[in-house]
Amino acid sequence: LEPDEPSVQTEIPGPRSRELLKELDTIQNTKAVHFFVDYERSQGNYLTDVDGNVILDLYTQIASVPIGYNHPRLLDALMKKENRATFVNRPALGVYPPSDLSSRLKNALLSVAPPGLNQVMTMACGACSVEHSQKAMFIAYQRRQRGGKPPSIKELQSCLEGKPPGSPNLSVLSFKNGLHGRTMGALAVTHAKWALKLDFPVPDWPCASFPTLQYPLDQFVRENRAEEDRCLNEVKERIHAWEKRNCPVAGIIVEPIQSEGGDNHATPYFFQCLQDIAKECEIPLMIDEVQTGCGATGKFWAHEHWDLENAPDIVCFSKKMLTGGFYYKDHLRPEQGYRIFNTWLGDPSKLIFLEEVVNLIKEEGLLVQVQDTGSYLINGLYDMQNKYPGLLSRARGIGTFCSIDVKDADTRDKILHKLIQRGINLGPCGSVSIRFRPTLLLSRNHVDIFIDTFDSVIAEL
Amino acid sequence: LEPDEPSVQTEIPGPRSRELLKELDTIQNTKAVHFFVDYERSQGNYLTDVDGNVILDLYTQIASVPIGYNHPRLLDALMKKENRATFVNRPALGVYPPSDLSSRLKNALLSVAPPGLNQVMTMACGACSVEHSQKAMFIAYQRRQRGGKPPSIKELQSCLEGKPPGSPNLSVLSFKNGLHGRTMGALAVTHAKWALKLDFPVPDWPCASFPTLQYPLDQFVRENRAEEDRCLNEVKERIHAWEKRNCPVAGIIVEPIQSEGGDNHATPYFFQCLQDIAKECEIPLMIDEVQTGCGATGKFWAHEHWDLENAPDIVCFSKKMLTGGFYYKDHLRPEQGYRIFNTWLGDPSKLIFLEEVVNLIKEEGLLVQVQDTGSYLINGLYDMQNKYPGLLSRARGIGTFCSIDVKDADTRDKILHKLIQRGINLGPCGSVSIRFRPTLLLSRNHVDIFIDTFDSVIAEL
Ligand code: FES
Repeated sequence: LEPDEPSVQTEIPGPRSRELLKELDTIQNTKAVHFFVDYERSQGNYLTDVDGNVILDLYTQIASVPIGYNHPRLLDALMKKENRATFVNRPALGVYPPSDLSSRLKNALLSVAPPGLNQVMTMACGACSVEHSQKAMFIAYQRRQRGGKPPSIKELQSCLEGKPPGSPNLSVLSFKNGLHGRTMGALAVTHAKWALKLDFPVPDWPCASFPTLQYPLDQFVRENRAEEDRCLNEVKERIHAWEKRNCPVAGIIVEPIQSEGGDNHATPYFFQCLQDIAKECEIPLMIDEVQTGCGATGKFWAHEHWDLENAPDIVCFSKKMLTGGFYYKDHLRPEQGYRIFNTWLGDPSKLIFLEEVVNLIKEEGLLVQVQDTGSYLINGLYDMQNKYPGLLSRARGIGTFCSIDVKDADTRDKILHKLIQRGINLGPCGSVSIRFRPTLLLSRNHVDIFIDTFDSVIAEL
Repeated sequence: LEPDEPSVQTEIPGPRSRELLKELDTIQNTKAVHFFVDYERSQGNYLTDVDGNVILDLYTQIASVPIGYNHPRLLDALMKKENRATFVNRPALGVYPPSDLSSRLKNALLSVAPPGLNQVMTMACGACSVEHSQKAMFIAYQRRQRGGKPPSIKELQSCLEGKPPGSPNLSVLSFKNGLHGRTMGALAVTHAKWALKLDFPVPDWPCASFPTLQYPLDQFVRENRAEEDRCLNEVKERIHAWEKRNCPVAGIIVEPIQSEGGDNHATPYFFQCLQDIAKECEIPLMIDEVQTGCGATGKFWAHEHWDLENAPDIVCFSKKMLTGGFYYKDHLRPEQGYRIFNTWLGDPSKLIFLEEVVNLIKEEGLLVQVQDTGSYLINGLYDMQNKYPGLLSRARGIGTFCSIDVKDADTRDKILHKLIQRGINLGPCGSVSIRFRPTLLLSRNHVDIFIDTFDSVIAEL
């Protein structure tokens, strides 16, 4: 069972963490390391670090732990005799699939497929999920260009050299402050922070502004509408500009809530219009739910909050889903084999765990719990920003996918530092935001602990 | 224990495989699927398919199974109580590493590091290993350009838009017929097959010819030297050409044996000269050992066969290593945090298995066994091509990393089809080659079974 509350014995990082850091630093750059964790002793929403400090984890391995540490259902799945072969024999899934692949895909992935999507590919992380989604869009785009004809000899040859016509000038439209991954194709649509991009060549693809809204959204309806219209116009303009440059846009990629870039929300109107634009331009709309998916917003997929007329064409996932991959519509399914392919295509042992997660979400009604805890959390954040105006602002969130802004980056970092010294782990995002990325098991009790500590930390500033 | 020999009950794919295929095909494109496997019943060098056929596997999930199916040491590692937390709690390794990370990196990875390399990053697959290796090269290149100065404001801003100077025009030189992965940066240096590249935009980077040698190598020393010099000249020429185009080459990437591209070998002379060129141009030489690493050539790393003056600057790995990643020299270590980074940075549960693999290789002297079995296999292939000249040619290999050519693609495919019907699984590569990618546990007995079957299959043609 998980601890009742945080308990801190040492400075964090403590002496043992610092010792381990020194050792690791002889092998690789360790500047992003915060502290070392004793995962065996971590439980539920609580991490235990190597110095014995017990930490309420509201950041959960960069939003990637769905049901807490050492959940008994995951441990049971690990110990089951019939699962052993899946853990020790990793197949080349696209060539020699295991007998239970279809049933695992159905139980773990299709049972929670976004409404309207019935095709799914597994991948191993967010970046390859984005890259292969992009490839599915490029294949579909070129297929339409060819109007049913097979690729020409010239295309088949020139593609090997990475030159047109086989390797065409095509682009994907993305948004400022977005983050979709760190391999080159995913990086081309990523614009959140310089550390991600400096020194790295990427193709020059179109990028539109993502709305910068005022919160709470319902108090700034007119202003926000104007801002969203401005961004939507940029989208249209960029699509036409890149068409003229002979580097047409083959698809649009967007996060439901820009996470790394600062927890930037947009309204259903924005996404509905974006879908209209995509439809008008006959290009797919791809939703990157790597961080928002798997229940954190109180629906299984964040885009379910938008009442879209049709399902998005592609939805990619990773993190809490434990496996990477993407759902897609039929028209994005490649016709030939080996086109969306690599050696492993994911790892079925992650599907074993995901199936447990998905079943737990259903059996325990975790989406409803996330909605409840989430509204409790956001109200707590509203109270805090009312109590500390000038210091805190822009509290926002759906489900437990919440965040709040601090007056400047230094103060934000100071607050995060003080919080971890009190046993609460949170992450930064954007330039001045704090983001909440708890497990789906977060309860009102955890929120109380956080708000109390937050309040006393801020009072101390 | 593994079976004594192949045993085939049905056509392959059999009725059960065909049924499962139909089901899977409702969810995704299945054209690359060969047959479905019962991994629970597979053992050692033998796969059992879902129709009960027992198949000697000389292709091993596209060269990614080091010590066979269901090896007892892997099963034991899976069941160990102290390993459980590592399987069920996947950390964000770069931020909240587990207490045992350094020791796992040392035991699993540094204990088999290529001589001269002492830094290592873990990644999750071959593609991200290649992409992040490239990024390490780009960072190092730009650091040298800045001569110790920090990046300018203009660089920090322009990189977010993917434009120079922050996102500079830099390239990586690669070789025709190479394969390094399917994400965009890895795809830019990949040229093996159209299915990999058609319809996908990639940057226009320099690509030189890889030697097309005559085999056996020792009978064509003069001809092969001339061919290698031709290719080396192309390398120099391309580097200068891209320098002039203002898209300088920041590094060279090469496979020790081009695998997917047709099992193309080059001599130690070629790689020594390539290293000289890299040194002269002050750029790193990166060796992609994703397919050749982990003992298949009878040394742990294929490049150890070359007697290089210095260690290569980067060596990346995946497949049989079970985790992706790359070793690198100090000068390629980034100075800031979060530069070579993603959410998971690999998966420590794979290090648990790799540690077992590495220990088994050492304890059982598997590299010596690979050398012995390999020379037995290549001699068998020589006998076969002597027996069937005009049909078979160009037998080649180091360790058990062997291949042989068939007179044309149709006949090659027919032979592979007949072999699987007799219970022997092999893979194609290039246009007319058959490649051997067995486990490290292959013995002379397995080779005998293969040669007998191969002989009778060819006699039947
Ligand atoms: S790119 Fe996703 S696992 Fe390597």
